[in-house]
Amino acid sequence: MYPAGILNKIILGTILQGASMQWDNFFAERTKSMKRSTIREILKLTAQPDVISFAGGLPASEFFPIEHVRQATDRVLRDSGQEALQYTTTEGLPALRQLIADRLSDADFSVHPDDILIISGSQQGLDLINRLLLNEGDRMVVENPTYLGMLMASRPFSLEYVPVGSDDDGMVIDDLEPLMKDTPDLVYSVPNFQNPQGTTLSLERRHQLIDLLQRYPVPLLEDNPYGELRYTGEDLPSLLLLEAQKRGSHRLDGSVIYLGTFSKVLTPGLRIGYIAAAPQVIDKLVQIKQSADLHTNTLSQYIAYEISKDGYLDQHIAALRDVYRERRDVMLDAMTENFPDEVHWSEPDGGLFLMVRMPQGVDSTELLKRALEHKVAFVPGADFHIGGIGQNTMRLNFSNAKPEQIAEGVYRLAVLLKEELIAQH
Amino acid sequence: MYPAGILNKIILGTILQGASMQWDNFFAERTKSMKRSTIREILKLTAQPDVISFAGGLPASEFFPIEHVRQATDRVLRDSGQEALQYTTTEGLPALRQLIADRLSDADFSVHPDDILIISGSQQGLDLINRLLLNEGDRMVVENPTYLGMLMASRPFSLEYVPVGSDDDGMVIDDLEPLMKDTPDLVYSVPNFQNPQGTTLSLERRHQLIDLLQRYPVPLLEDNPYGELRYTGEDLPSLLLLEAQKRGSHRLDGSVIYLGTFSKVLTPGLRIGYIAAAPQVIDKLVQIKQSADLHTNTLSQYIAYEISKDGYLDQHIAALRDVYRERRDVMLDAMTENFPDEVHWSEPDGGLFLMVRMPQGVDSTELLKRALEHKVAFVPGADFHIGGIGQNTMRLNFSNAKPEQIAEGVYRLAVLLKEELIAQH
Repeated sequence: MYPAGILNKIILGTILQGASMQWDNFFAERTKSMKRSTIREILKLTAQPDVISFAGGLPASEFFPIEHVRQATDRVLRDSGQEALQYTTTEGLPALRQLIADRLSDADFSVHPDDILIISGSQQGLDLINRLLLNEGDRMVVENPTYLGMLMASRPFSLEYVPVGSDDDGMVIDDLEPLMKDTPDLVYSVPNFQNPQGTTLSLERRHQLIDLLQRYPVPLLEDNPYGELRYTGEDLPSLLLLEAQKRGSHRLDGSVIYLGTFSKVLTPGLRIGYIAAAPQVIDKLVQIKQSADLHTNTLSQYIAYEISKDGYLDQHIAALRDVYRERRDVMLDAMTENFPDEVHWSEPDGGLFLMVRMPQGVDSTELLKRALEHKVAFVPGADFHIGGIGQNTMRLNFSNAKPEQIAEGVYRLAVLLKEELIAQH
Repeated sequence: MYPAGILNKIILGTILQGASMQWDNFFAERTKSMKRSTIREILKLTAQPDVISFAGGLPASEFFPIEHVRQATDRVLRDSGQEALQYTTTEGLPALRQLIADRLSDADFSVHPDDILIISGSQQGLDLINRLLLNEGDRMVVENPTYLGMLMASRPFSLEYVPVGSDDDGMVIDDLEPLMKDTPDLVYSVPNFQNPQGTTLSLERRHQLIDLLQRYPVPLLEDNPYGELRYTGEDLPSLLLLEAQKRGSHRLDGSVIYLGTFSKVLTPGLRIGYIAAAPQVIDKLVQIKQSADLHTNTLSQYIAYEISKDGYLDQHIAALRDVYRERRDVMLDAMTENFPDEVHWSEPDGGLFLMVRMPQGVDSTELLKRALEHKVAFVPGADFHIGGIGQNTMRLNFSNAKPEQIAEGVYRLAVLLKEELIAQH
């Protein structure tokens, strides 16, 4: 089932036989895993305090509401200690499901708490939804580039990834339409401030996409970890609600599965994410989650509810928006001032990332080696791309470094880029 | 990949077509899932305060160390708030891995912290290990009866379960030997106070089992959630250490994968479990876990470490042993006093469960219906069994009800059993 299954029996077989020569074969065969480890190694380097890191996707821990978490935990343990430390239902804490349902609702459409499943961070959502919907060799439509965590989570299924181009208005829906006629098994979209590009699907394209969903029986996964972190422009409706509303439905009973998380707006360490979908889909996901880990951390669910219930979460998000808006602006300004003219980048309205596109021939993996010598880190863009392209791109995160570090880091990158371009000519 | 994958596309297809007739087909087809829901319904009934519950497997929440958790959380948030609320490594908190490695070590063998992976409760361990080792249609050797959570976690693989009998000394290893010649894909064992029977694998049989492992290239999963909850008798060595020691090895490099948890000895709500295995196995499991949920709850890991580091966990376990020993004894005494002579039961040296065997012809699922009318609950044994047997068995949990409730609940069951046996004659 897990494609490496046979291989893993070889591992254990090798252990038992103590045949050390066979270890080399084993390690040689898992090049793909080693490739992913490259990024993990980068992320480890960024943990060194003297490296300015545009890698990773960490929220700014200096703005974590630590004291609020402490007080919330105190109250939870005082008022509901036995319940908050006991096993709970797979579906999740009813009060937290209600709170999330309310946050996803708008003036015209109420999400029902039964349509919410609490999960251990949104990465678990990708895993559970893949396990629900995908079979080996299935076809998944993704933006190109797309989120690395989804490529990682879907790797066991040996999928055929069907890439769709994107521009400043997000996924190009005109390009998606002909693909829908072949009924792919899943369409994966990060409509707001996409990782890695930072682009947002425009309102017009949202309507276009929903029209397609109503003509073709294809499920859509709307992955929205950053939607509440908007720094400029107007909030756009979720595909989840838009789909139901366009059909005139009053319940979630369509083909959109929505994935959200508290990781970017509260703290990632609590591991609280959620799925919103038709109740029949939630019911199946509950069964898969029950087998996977019984239920999400009880104490964390209580804390997330306690800290959010009286409006504090919204205050905190408003403050975070100001912090991250400044960091984004510092990065954009520093790039405008220092980067060579041949280099281009996206200008996100929110989220944590932007993507830099260098002239063809500049290899960002090579650039990273030199950047690390100058104590600045980013993630090379190739791994986010389908089809062996994107070597000339890099993803920059602007949430985790302080403004003065961001300006300095961009300056260092600019110097390297100029040297690189001179060397090319 | 997930066997229900095709079926699930039908679900979504049905949603899209709005063809309500097809829903009925869908629900009719998932009888297996509904069957599991029966047990979930039972567990919901037990949440009513007037039901005496021997169902579930809940630790006694009135003995949760709530104040210690509160103080530990305060210290963690004061001293390491930013780290404890941030993303962390998939492997887990180094200090907690070290603490667990030390707890698994004995005077002759040191477990290395690199051989430990922190997971979100031991159910996640079952899922990750299955995904590492099993392919569809594989053969897994299990005691009969065996742990329901493992049957649940392995259901997607459409395994062939190969049952081995057990008696008061645990799995009958003489019966296992001929099965090993066909190299099954995994042997699953709960050697201490097995769920559902409460039986323990004797020292002699542990040696016998390790001898088999050294002759046949078959991985063994040692699932040990209850081992530290021993009320009578001497602690026995883990299969993990015994296997390495018998080969004269000084590292974990054999075929045993060990699964442990803080759920039964600290609190389940923190969702902290762990796997100990050869580093090559841990490395692969880390990759699967990274795709599954990135990492285990950071705050919980800090709390579990903080509360355990100065020896408090051992004091707490000693106190729990006294509590649960009394409850076990009350249950055994009440059964001896009240149950009809034709009824037999296991006498566990530890853990949370025992199994009752009634005369053939008594159906425990039918008995449960009557028991619930008399406000007492248990789990019918059939679901733990392979091969459609065990209808005349029931699993009783003795950790979650207070002693006086246990005596009363057993008395009520005894009355029902006597009526049932009279009706049979």
